[in-house]
Amino acid sequence: MVKQERAQVTREAIVAGAAAVFGRRGYGLASIADIAAEAGVTKGALYFHFASKDELARAVIDEQHRRTMEAAATVIEEGRPGLETMVVLSVMLARQLFSDPVVQAGIRLSTDVSLFDPPVVEPYEDWLRAAEDLFRRAVEEGDLRPGLDPGMLARVVVPAYTGVQLVSELVSHRSDLMERVRDLWTVLLPGIVPDSEWERLRSLPELIH
Amino acid sequence: MVKQERAQVTREAIVAGAAAVFGRRGYGLASIADIAAEAGVTKGALYFHFASKDELARAVIDEQHRRTMEAAATVIEEGRPGLETMVVLSVMLARQLFSDPVVQAGIRLSTDVSLFDPPVVEPYEDWLRAAEDLFRRAVEEGDLRPGLDPGMLARVVVPAYTGVQLVSELVSHRSDLMERVRDLWTVLLPGIVPDSEWERLRSLPELIH
Repeated sequence: MVKQERAQVTREAIVAGAAAVFGRRGYGLASIADIAAEAGVTKGALYFHFASKDELARAVIDEQHRRTMEAAATVIEEGRPGLETMVVLSVMLARQLFSDPVVQAGIRLSTDVSLFDPPVVEPYEDWLRAAEDLFRRAVEEGDLRPGLDPGMLARVVVPAYTGVQLVSELVSHRSDLMERVRDLWTVLLPGIVPDSEWERLRSLPELIH
Repeated sequence: MVKQERAQVTREAIVAGAAAVFGRRGYGLASIADIAAEAGVTKGALYFHFASKDELARAVIDEQHRRTMEAAATVIEEGRPGLETMVVLSVMLARQLFSDPVVQAGIRLSTDVSLFDPPVVEPYEDWLRAAEDLFRRAVEEGDLRPGLDPGMLARVVVPAYTGVQLVSELVSHRSDLMERVRDLWTVLLPGIVPDSEWERLRSLPELIH
């Protein structure tokens, strides 16, 4: 391997190690020494890439958000209608939260409001934008109630989902996450879709399993 | 003052000081020395009451939750219908989040999942129980759609509200909180209330200002 590639591999190992340690011990109790050990690198090598625990946490969030947005782009490109795409995206993120330690740690860190100054807002802004685009498409497709503003709906659904996964982690270690995501859509849908389209769209929460 | 009363006053000053410092610096950067200085007590006096920063944070959450539940009890005793009571409670908590530094710090700490092991779940459980009771009353009052389960609705609304206030803090320092709470109810209501009661209940979000 050339030197640059080796540095990249080391950096990725450190980010994965940081995610594992943050996930296990929480941010407060995680130490740089633990993270270096978990990643199989020396503390010196770690400090070559990251100057502080804050930088490590931001790198975990960045990598989580990159993976989530990459998976989201794949879902969006499948070309489903806008509202259905939103439902499928909510399942996709829940699956990442079950299976990917970097996503688990990154999402958890990005809801830990008091850890970061300045706060980490880019992931929320990206999601709000993506959701508004999809709901705008849903308006064109006749899947939203007349008068329901796509931007307002995004500013409800994205934070609501954020809270649902957070409380699910707190009270059940995410074991009830998929069920709670389905409940969220079950409660939201009758108020989102036009009465005339209800029979066609009422089964959307069944996509969640 | 007798000795016990003096100790109680000191304890309250420390909790208020901890809330102020956690609010200003975040949990990670807050030091015991800062908190003692803010409270106007010596570090020795502080350690007499609280053994660690973790204990201080839990005390702030306890005091926040006590104040919130006390205010909630007052609202509930006013005897409005169940669904209207839920809307008024969501406004009441938003007002506390604007005006009371202990509530600001306590709510923020209780969404910082990675800070506590074991996690702080009692406040969520209390809210889920209170919401389920009120939605059960709303069923009797004919204000919920037939078939909508009050427990499921509580498990959507409480986490959704949690997320709405969290994202509002992150992206706007809560300046848009009241608007986002109104949006939440505006989106939820058409899916919650029976079509036959829509004209009577559609103005509920106007209680929020």
